Amino acid sequence: MIVQFSIVPLGVGISVSNYVAKVIKIVDESGLPYKLHAMGTIVEGEWEDVMNLIKKCRDALMDEVERVVIDIKIDDRKGAKGRIEGKVKSVEEKVGKIVKK
Amino acid sequence: MIVQFSIVPLGVGISVSNYVAKVIKIVDESGLPYKLHAMGTIVEGEWEDVMNLIKKCRDALMDEVERVVIDIKIDDRKGAKGRIEGKVKSVEEKVGKIVKK
Amino acid sequence: MIVQFSIVPLGVGISVSNYVAKVIKIVDESGLPYKLHAMGTIVEGEWEDVMNLIKKCRDALMDEVERVVIDIKIDDRKGAKGRIEGKVKSVEEKVGKIVKK
Amino acid sequence: MIVQFSIVPLGVGISVSNYVAKVIKIVDESGLPYKLHAMGTIVEGEWEDVMNLIKKCRDALMDEVERVVIDIKIDDRKGAKGRIEGKVKSVEEKVGKIVKK
Repeated sequence: MIVQFSIVPLGVGISVSNYVAKVIKIVDESGLPYKLHAMGTIVEGEWEDVMNLIKKCRDALMDEVERVVIDIKIDDRKGAKGRIEGKVKSVEEKVGKIVKK
Repeated sequence: MIVQFSIVPLGVGISVSNYVAKVIKIVDESGLPYKLHAMGTIVEGEWEDVMNLIKKCRDALMDEVERVVIDIKIDDRKGAKGRIEGKVKSVEEKVGKIVKK
Repeated sequence: MIVQFSIVPLGVGISVSNYVAKVIKIVDESGLPYKLHAMGTIVEGEWEDVMNLIKKCRDALMDEVERVVIDIKIDDRKGAKGRIEGKVKSVEEKVGKIVKK
Repeated sequence: MIVQFSIVPLGVGISVSNYVAKVIKIVDESGLPYKLHAMGTIVEGEWEDVMNLIKKCRDALMDEVERVVIDIKIDDRKGAKGRIEGKVKSVEEKVGKIVKK
């Protein structure tokens, strides 16, 4: 399955990029395929692997802050793999490669 | 922590309330405090309990459909409990009980 | 259409219920049917009415804070009305009224 | 502000990439900076421009389908621009450029 998530710590000021960087290090070390974009991080893997990863990220932030808001969006399709790139390509082919990268 | 989630099955037509009913039965049997509203279900519990519950709901739907989209939103605040009702009351007190129930 | 939204201000500390109260006052004054729950506010209305309302809430918070994160989830179904209560009832009937209120 | 959105049509089968392609064409024609990723489309612009664009996409799909579910996530920060790339760069610099692109 393919999963997008974001974790926003509250009570730490307006800029949260230090916390996002901490999360990305943990995601990178997980070995799962991932992609960081401006509104979250996309990961692909099995339920347990992805959820354990997100929990690890949450635990790391909750060591430092009192409250976090986490958004998780899952697209779970039987037998589908390689979808972080695959889903984008599928759409781009249909719009005739007019899409800016 | 307090968690809102929704599971939308794709490829089964426009109405999905039969699937939501299936999910609610599983949530009800879990024993966790919960509340169903028009856009999702709110559950309160520890990470493992809530995530295992959502996985159980997902597994039940994936037995019948090929693809689901799941949204999960977590509000995780240290030491906070009873928040399904508590968060609403806290706001209502501040708006002077003008809020419709 | 039926719309759930939440607005989280960043950089104002851990508790944001004062800001939510401000939003609810604006929602209440709009005259649109709505329901506050622990993870957001559900409103029903036409696109322009709902979006203007959310913009009004955002403007009110942006008068006081530097950054907000807004989540909006729309369920748009042709010809459907009265769905804040209707969607819940439809599911409850299917689970045999076992759902806790 | 920077906005991520996705529109999922219900009742049209499991694959929805034809509909996403339709949306991307409309986004591309808008002239707003955007980026398509596997879980949605990110656009940057003023409230009215972005919301009018999303409404246009929704109207185009509602011409063909009976029901859509739309997710919109807004990150609104005073004075911030160029954030589709900027937010990612800010994080990448902090994790020492270990992030895969």
